[in-house]
Amino acid sequence: MKNGKEFIEKTKYPYLEKSDQLSGVPQPPLELEWDQEAVTIDLPQDAPLNPVELTTAIQRRQSVRQYNNLPLSLAELSHLLWCTQGVKQVYSNRTARNVPSAGSRHALETWLVVNNVAGLQSGLYRYIASKHQLALITPAASGDIAAKATELCHGQPFVKTAAALFIWVAVPYRMAWRYGDRGYRYLHLDAGHVCQNLYLAAESIDAGVCAIAAYDDDQMNAFLGIDGENAFAIYMATVGKKQAY
Amino acid sequence: MKNGKEFIEKTKYPYLEKSDQLSGVPQPPLELEWDQEAVTIDLPQDAPLNPVELTTAIQRRQSVRQYNNLPLSLAELSHLLWCTQGVKQVYSNRTARNVPSAGSRHALETWLVVNNVAGLQSGLYRYIASKHQLALITPAASGDIAAKATELCHGQPFVKTAAALFIWVAVPYRMAWRYGDRGYRYLHLDAGHVCQNLYLAAESIDAGVCAIAAYDDDQMNAFLGIDGENAFAIYMATVGKKQAY
Repeated sequence: MKNGKEFIEKTKYPYLEKSDQLSGVPQPPLELEWDQEAVTIDLPQDAPLNPVELTTAIQRRQSVRQYNNLPLSLAELSHLLWCTQGVKQVYSNRTARNVPSAGSRHALETWLVVNNVAGLQSGLYRYIASKHQLALITPAASGDIAAKATELCHGQPFVKTAAALFIWVAVPYRMAWRYGDRGYRYLHLDAGHVCQNLYLAAESIDAGVCAIAAYDDDQMNAFLGIDGENAFAIYMATVGKKQAY
Repeated sequence: MKNGKEFIEKTKYPYLEKSDQLSGVPQPPLELEWDQEAVTIDLPQDAPLNPVELTTAIQRRQSVRQYNNLPLSLAELSHLLWCTQGVKQVYSNRTARNVPSAGSRHALETWLVVNNVAGLQSGLYRYIASKHQLALITPAASGDIAAKATELCHGQPFVKTAAALFIWVAVPYRMAWRYGDRGYRYLHLDAGHVCQNLYLAAESIDAGVCAIAAYDDDQMNAFLGIDGENAFAIYMATVGKKQAY
């Protein structure tokens, strides 16, 4: 476990270089650019939610790998995006969101494989958090894109039957500008916050979630159209309606 | 950002060695040992909770750094420990808890700096998740231990006024036995799940939380009595009663 140990060692304070922030370098944009020609979809904010008591949700949560074939509604998908990366307020140099982030850096972006969402063309999307919109990156037949995503996740079969796959992408410089190499720890901590909120938020819409951290990094990044260095897939999770018991 | 980039690169699958699990090495224990001579305290399970709707809790959460000087009750502390690392079931080779963990490895332990909890001697404790008990490691005057913890967190002043400081410790081999070096990513993802549950669970007891990832690693590990390699502090968070607005 040489590489893991070394990472922990080398991200201790004595090894950190002076941050770009401290050196007066302007901070990077709060959000990654997207194709301005892309079709965008406004997300509704009126999902019918089942009220769920917080402690009940925490205790009931478990990873769900069996989904029925009912679609998510667009409003339900919107709710999950809102709870995981929704922007409550934009300030000049940071955003306030529904999840905590080290120094409010919020250095994550959300890509989505949409497989079975009512009224939404299947394909690869990005969530534009600042506008609470989806941008369509690549349309695809639903079976095809789910099969591709399954392959990138080492064949884990529930990827294929999920209504959607959330893919969180780290934009490391947004974090490292302030925290240097130690920021790579924080990117993962932040992705954990986000995924836990997805698990819990799914309880309000009778959906189940399974987190995925085992995937082919290079192929996944290529699939998303990112370079793997300035942006890389850091965590993902499937969502689908729960089977009746 | 050489070290962060290198960590991401070297924890891709092509670089991973055959795991100890695949090599037939028996798995490590599910929980770190503790001093069997230590005073232990059974945690009550009857905290009076304010019912909170899940979505409300998610949207209301923010990092809270201002606490009043009211103590947490032992039942309230118990509730926070239950929601963050509580063991729902013990199986022969894994535990099921109130948070998700990669491969159910649950490679975290919880240390606590108790500063202001009614009926509980101030000092450093460990949460024995398998028994839902606290074990007293070092008793200390409340002001003294809070001042020490503040110093280890680079002087962040709210550490001193918090009722308790949660310190999550990673036991990397419990994760790496199965996942090798890639497991160091998962330790951080898991710590993020846990911290998010702490943030939310605090909403049920009128308490506020602030996550902390900036601390002196070596001094913090020494303070906890761990070696920094087989066990190291990975994340922490303060908790205290919210000031009335």
